[in-house]
Amino acid sequence: MAYRNILVAVDLSPDSQILVHKAVSLAERDGAKIYFIHVDVNYADIYSSLVEEDLGPEQERIEKENRQLVQSLIDAAGYPISATLYGKGDFIQALENAVVKYDIDLIVCGHYQDFWNTLKSAARQLIHRMHIDMLIVPLSKDNDEYFEED
Amino acid sequence: MAYRNILVAVDLSPDSQILVHKAVSLAERDGAKIYFIHVDVNYADIYSSLVEEDLGPEQERIEKENRQLVQSLIDAAGYPISATLYGKGDFIQALENAVVKYDIDLIVCGHYQDFWNTLKSAARQLIHRMHIDMLIVPLSKDNDEYFEED
Repeated sequence: MAYRNILVAVDLSPDSQILVHKAVSLAERDGAKIYFIHVDVNYADIYSSLVEEDLGPEQERIEKENRQLVQSLIDAAGYPISATLYGKGDFIQALENAVVKYDIDLIVCGHYQDFWNTLKSAARQLIHRMHIDMLIVPLSKDNDEYFEED
Repeated sequence: MAYRNILVAVDLSPDSQILVHKAVSLAERDGAKIYFIHVDVNYADIYSSLVEEDLGPEQERIEKENRQLVQSLIDAAGYPISATLYGKGDFIQALENAVVKYDIDLIVCGHYQDFWNTLKSAARQLIHRMHIDMLIVPLSKDNDEYFEED
């Protein structure tokens, strides 16, 4: 029943470290592999007002920053991180690809991140169809908007 | 980061054993305590058509059956179950009471049970306010109705 391949959805907030520690705690007993995934779901929203030719350098800068933040999570994990995946936009598709590629059997995610909003509609695909356990961890960001009713 | 008190929401389907095994797998390394909770959320729905005076003996019979099913889960767990809680009706309230009483830091639940429907509206209370991790486990019952959009 132990997990073999754990995927941590890191959103690069300071709280991401909590998720990483949870994953390491679950992984270390049986030597499970840990993978990170970071999907920049907000990018399109934030920059939709910019003209297209401006996106290139700005996007590059953000991606570079994100990779540095992920690297600092990897450095602080105290456990080998087998691979890190980066995606943009379609979080669910990126997760599904990762699940298939690395034979993931547990996804660890924070409860406030954008994942939560997609959870309702995508739950069937992720949990049910793909048969993946999900560990949802409460984080400190007090943001009620993620819990508004439809 | 290890869990100390794990609450398993058992719905008494054959799949409940999967949840128990997951919980035991998480608990045994650090000797965490495992608690069961069973809340008969469907009772009112099923028997709303019966006249009130018929409820007594029927309710007694069902409760007895439920306790036998829980006992068989306890017997098969291969790990001590510290306590079992029974509730009727308000699942969330019963969970909250259990969380406070036993200082629960992880709830393990199946994805198809009635818990899922209450998850959306109760998530803020359970995950956020009470700061409880939740492990959601996919089970075999193929029932799409739990994933209908609002």
